[in-house]
Amino acid sequence: MLTYSMEDRGGLPLYEYLYRCIRADILEGTLATDERLPSKRALAEHLHLSVITVEGAYQQLEAEGYVYTRPKRGFFVAPVDRAPRPAAPAPIPAEPPARVWRLDLGRNQVDGSRFPVSTWARLTRQVLSEGGAAILSPTPHQGLYALRQAIADDLRDFKGMAVSPEQIVVGAGAEYLYLLLAQLLGREAVFAVEDPGYPKIRQVYSKCGAACVPVPIDRQGMNPRALEDSGANVVHISPTHHYPTGIVTPIGRRQALLRWAEERGGVIIEDDYDSEFRFAGRPIPTLQSIDARGQVVYMNTFSQTISPSMRMGFMILPPRLLERYRRELDFYACTVPVLEQHVLARFLSGGYYEQHLSRMRKEYRARRAAVIDAFQNSPFADRVTFSEQGAGLHFLLRLDTKQPDGDIRRRAGALGVRLAFLSEYEAVPGSRYAHTLVVNYAGLDPARLDDAMPLLAEIFAE
Amino acid sequence: MLTYSMEDRGGLPLYEYLYRCIRADILEGTLATDERLPSKRALAEHLHLSVITVEGAYQQLEAEGYVYTRPKRGFFVAPVDRAPRPAAPAPIPAEPPARVWRLDLGRNQVDGSRFPVSTWARLTRQVLSEGGAAILSPTPHQGLYALRQAIADDLRDFKGMAVSPEQIVVGAGAEYLYLLLAQLLGREAVFAVEDPGYPKIRQVYSKCGAACVPVPIDRQGMNPRALEDSGANVVHISPTHHYPTGIVTPIGRRQALLRWAEERGGVIIEDDYDSEFRFAGRPIPTLQSIDARGQVVYMNTFSQTISPSMRMGFMILPPRLLERYRRELDFYACTVPVLEQHVLARFLSGGYYEQHLSRMRKEYRARRAAVIDAFQNSPFADRVTFSEQGAGLHFLLRLDTKQPDGDIRRRAGALGVRLAFLSEYEAVPGSRYAHTLVVNYAGLDPARLDDAMPLLAEIFAE
Repeated sequence: MLTYSMEDRGGLPLYEYLYRCIRADILEGTLATDERLPSKRALAEHLHLSVITVEGAYQQLEAEGYVYTRPKRGFFVAPVDRAPRPAAPAPIPAEPPARVWRLDLGRNQVDGSRFPVSTWARLTRQVLSEGGAAILSPTPHQGLYALRQAIADDLRDFKGMAVSPEQIVVGAGAEYLYLLLAQLLGREAVFAVEDPGYPKIRQVYSKCGAACVPVPIDRQGMNPRALEDSGANVVHISPTHHYPTGIVTPIGRRQALLRWAEERGGVIIEDDYDSEFRFAGRPIPTLQSIDARGQVVYMNTFSQTISPSMRMGFMILPPRLLERYRRELDFYACTVPVLEQHVLARFLSGGYYEQHLSRMRKEYRARRAAVIDAFQNSPFADRVTFSEQGAGLHFLLRLDTKQPDGDIRRRAGALGVRLAFLSEYEAVPGSRYAHTLVVNYAGLDPARLDDAMPLLAEIFAE
Repeated sequence: MLTYSMEDRGGLPLYEYLYRCIRADILEGTLATDERLPSKRALAEHLHLSVITVEGAYQQLEAEGYVYTRPKRGFFVAPVDRAPRPAAPAPIPAEPPARVWRLDLGRNQVDGSRFPVSTWARLTRQVLSEGGAAILSPTPHQGLYALRQAIADDLRDFKGMAVSPEQIVVGAGAEYLYLLLAQLLGREAVFAVEDPGYPKIRQVYSKCGAACVPVPIDRQGMNPRALEDSGANVVHISPTHHYPTGIVTPIGRRQALLRWAEERGGVIIEDDYDSEFRFAGRPIPTLQSIDARGQVVYMNTFSQTISPSMRMGFMILPPRLLERYRRELDFYACTVPVLEQHVLARFLSGGYYEQHLSRMRKEYRARRAAVIDAFQNSPFADRVTFSEQGAGLHFLLRLDTKQPDGDIRRRAGALGVRLAFLSEYEAVPGSRYAHTLVVNYAGLDPARLDDAMPLLAEIFAE
């Protein structure tokens, strides 16, 4: 008869301790396969336990498959591996700690300190106070209708775009939208991406198994002839403000790209990243708004304008692709939590979003001017030239030097300064664009420029 | 000289109206390519405008590429397409409206009405009141450390799993985690999925370009011999509670699956969906917890336990795959908004999550009993048999009938009742499992059973 000392059970319930004892005996081979266990009543008497306790232990053993039952005959030991498996867990690799920089011009970060957190918090409390329905109810797969309506209204009022909420698909950030597009356009598609360009775009498409061809851009952005030669049938571009060169694609070139799409049956993905930060004049009209044949997918996120940690973006599908999306991909639930969707809808429709943008445009314009001014009054002023279009959260700075980019980057790193070079954004790094810095100034507090300039002077010294 | 009637501008600013007039003249061909525009001063005098207004219009035209400048010579019309593009926008397909059912047993929905929304709201307010840093600051790509720590603690305390927060990757729901896994394991991988099984699993893997083989399960779940024959090197299973059959894979079979993974160099994805709702005894130990060689990826979400509209899940990577993840996929930002991550971390570490689960287990156990009781006292009681394992938010009900599943479904639909059949979950629908309903009872209020039973009696009538 099975005999265990129930006093040794520590804080465990009796049934659980008994279950563990029998399980150990099975795994160690003390109890043989197909051996019959004592009846519940007999074991209960033997161990001075209640029948219910033994029954609890037997049921757990049966649920996990350590024992099986035969009708009217009782419980039997199931066949399981006896040899104790050598537990040789490999060590878990530690997470690389995030480096803290004295000065970081290398990352396109936004300054969150000016975001109206209290307004966002108030709207969140408002949605929460309306009860559980708002935060627990399911949303349509394309996203909350009220949010899509608010996005369509904002695009109409501030970008002159005529978009229906039905065309909008909300998703958790740009990368997730790239993942959807890779699946929507199919693995037979060949994606042309800008070279130089934002590396995550080609990373995501490639990881999804799509063929991805970097196409060198010229001074107007993507060139339809180069695009034609690439054999691509999808092209991913940022015509309003290319990252990282800042190029704005002129209307003639935009028309030529639309012609390419029509003739080729191609698709243009217009990634309108960063377009909100134009510091003078009207916003540049989007390709989507002059697309008469439904060849353009427009996408944008709130990462640059609110915060990357919000993970919210959207895309606008032309009718043909919208139908394909609903047919083939509508099984994907919307990836943005419904609470955030409600809050963003109110943030947009209440006018807080455009107010915030307007403030940030002023703020970034001043910051950009301060940074450029500091550079122009620096010891290395006569060795730098700027390339910028009055837009966006970065500009290019060409440095007259003979030192390779890698040497400058290393020297900066040793001083706690992070720099980014245009050459890093090339498909084949360092092949064409040497000595050009991508200055992401948005995270640079002008108050810190006095500390920053001597550091940079040391790094740029010949 | 260009002449426009500035009185017709409506509410537009002068510079914008002028820009639109000139743009129209360019697009209509009134102004020819390479034609020189009047000087800013001359046009300003001619139209009785300030030079600044004309400059604003010219700058916008230049920014968009309608005109170009030659140094010291002025502004010229750029080459653009003249022919007005025929705007023939295809109609936007309307969104299919969601059907409202009188009775819905077909969808595995959870009952959100018992969720402690007020606690969630309080924790949200707490995080928000701590200022902007919490909701705007970037999180590590694998997710907020505090959340991963809280998940690891919960798994240790309630499932006996030894997991390090470093191994956890947080993501926006199960489907997003499938997308990551498809990319992590590579397109050379062949994924075996359970047949019958949850259709989204094979949909996502297939959409990502992974080869996906449905493998018929037996009464213990996935069979290692069938798996071996399938040629797969990755298998996606739910051994704790298979959807939709409810099968619990016994320990001997689990060991055999681990042996398969070791011998084959394979990977087991343990999808622990629904495992929290076991109504008696201890939780079934996970495969992950007996995996000595690091072959198992564990994944779970909070969709069933909190709400699908929260979009939060996580996976636990073994050391080898964790390294590959950091090397190849760490460019993906975490898809869950940081606010939700903070709130969930507190919801877990404050004990509210397990309190909620404990309440819901009682609630669902009672609801399940009420539903089964109602079926057993129904006019069709002698024609139904149940198959269930005291766990999960659904059970199987076999109906003794000669009618094809499709006929019953249609008859139900006409009466406003949504039913799901086991045959719908087969890779080849209807091939093996006829006449078996998957009863998702979680959304069924017991108070509504009195209305529901006559409806079902009518549907199931011979």
